[in-house]
Amino acid sequence: MIILKLGGSVITEKDSVSPKVNFDNLNRIATEIKEYLNNSKMDNSDLIIVHGAGSFGHPLAKKYDIGNDFTMDQYAEKKIGFSLIHNHVNKLNTIVCSALIDNNVPVVPISPSSSVTAENKRIYSFNLDLLKRYLNEGFIPVLYGDVVLDNVCKLSVVSGDQIISYLASNLNPDKIILGTDVDGVFNKNPRLYDDAKLIGLVSSLNDLDQLDSTTNVDVTGGMVGKINELLTLTDFGIESKIINANVPKLVLDSLMDKQVKGTIIKK
Amino acid sequence: MIILKLGGSVITEKDSVSPKVNFDNLNRIATEIKEYLNNSKMDNSDLIIVHGAGSFGHPLAKKYDIGNDFTMDQYAEKKIGFSLIHNHVNKLNTIVCSALIDNNVPVVPISPSSSVTAENKRIYSFNLDLLKRYLNEGFIPVLYGDVVLDNVCKLSVVSGDQIISYLASNLNPDKIILGTDVDGVFNKNPRLYDDAKLIGLVSSLNDLDQLDSTTNVDVTGGMVGKINELLTLTDFGIESKIINANVPKLVLDSLMDKQVKGTIIKK
Repeated sequence: MIILKLGGSVITEKDSVSPKVNFDNLNRIATEIKEYLNNSKMDNSDLIIVHGAGSFGHPLAKKYDIGNDFTMDQYAEKKIGFSLIHNHVNKLNTIVCSALIDNNVPVVPISPSSSVTAENKRIYSFNLDLLKRYLNEGFIPVLYGDVVLDNVCKLSVVSGDQIISYLASNLNPDKIILGTDVDGVFNKNPRLYDDAKLIGLVSSLNDLDQLDSTTNVDVTGGMVGKINELLTLTDFGIESKIINANVPKLVLDSLMDKQVKGTIIKK
Repeated sequence: MIILKLGGSVITEKDSVSPKVNFDNLNRIATEIKEYLNNSKMDNSDLIIVHGAGSFGHPLAKKYDIGNDFTMDQYAEKKIGFSLIHNHVNKLNTIVCSALIDNNVPVVPISPSSSVTAENKRIYSFNLDLLKRYLNEGFIPVLYGDVVLDNVCKLSVVSGDQIISYLASNLNPDKIILGTDVDGVFNKNPRLYDDAKLIGLVSSLNDLDQLDSTTNVDVTGGMVGKINELLTLTDFGIESKIINANVPKLVLDSLMDKQVKGTIIKK
């Protein structure tokens, strides 16, 4: 089984103030996934896709400040924020699924707000029975970063990365591929520093000490948050690879297990 | 608690060959729901909305013939049909939710394909714990007719009416309001016969003997199927009312418990 993440920065115009899809990337990656399924000897049931929210989620999550403390007189507004954020990420999900269905990929979204609860911003309950049944029938489940009910904060955000971490620790995939908008983990922000070096392998939190603090930060914890989620999985022997999904064929080659530029996270 | 059905024939252009929303009806009804919530002394948690699929679901469900027997070499195509139908009804759901959120109604969709399984086209499992938690927090759950995994047929359709029947028998609502595109149940098709008479009360299947067989038929069983679902609920003392949601203020007045034209289903 492979879990493939399509970063919000890849499938949306992440810095757009209003929600905007990057259709060039989305449609190209959908054809790469189809090509993988055509070429692969594995059954379709071996793929799960998780996508981020990008400009469909982050600006609204920030505006409504979901996941932090609030007073009860703010609850009505927080709930509207929750409704709005879910509706936006769900819209993005229908667009992602459309691109895959157009390529004859039998996808089925599993809506986190319809199936997950959190406790203090971490997934608390998520019954995977239905997801496993869809996999067994040859469907490709598509999940996404979403808002969910929280036992402590009432309302919180679970990122696509946290969902991947939960799925991986329960389903024991062969590998995780994270399609981002950078080549992998750098010691410095490669957009600011010409001498930034790609780190090929991360095995422990100590390897992160060499990172400059400005490296890739987003509201769900950015690259460091991502690596933290992935490092916990190395304890179960699950290997992850961060690749640049903006580069044509890198998603396909990673799915096909070819060697590609990127950062491997393993013990 | 009230369960409100918004028929696919009300919120979409049902006879359109391609999916098309009836925004006049949808936006008007969204303001009526908001007005009800403003005026009502009841907590928001007392409302559940279920909508039909109309032109977003029925043409595709017919094309892919979901729910009937098929051979395994047809399964790949059936699965694409399943993916496509869910994606279309989910798109409709995002549009319905948008209209409600624009009116400051805190909705949360519960996606049937992410939470329901069927056995021989009837709902087999549907854990309502999360839906109840959303209700308790003051959200208004929005459900819809959808495709689901089936223990016997592999893939089947559950109509909005079947979902209402399941919710009602488990949640014991005070009433069910079904917003359709006709004034209620007639003895003949009112679009074909000038002397068609509105039946004010249906108490048993015998009352349906007076119906002409051409009265309102759709792929999910039409008006007779609808009444069958509702009659089973009268055993639990749950009353339903079929009203014409195309007529302004009828949804509002029904929610406010005012007397309106329609057909009551009760023992």
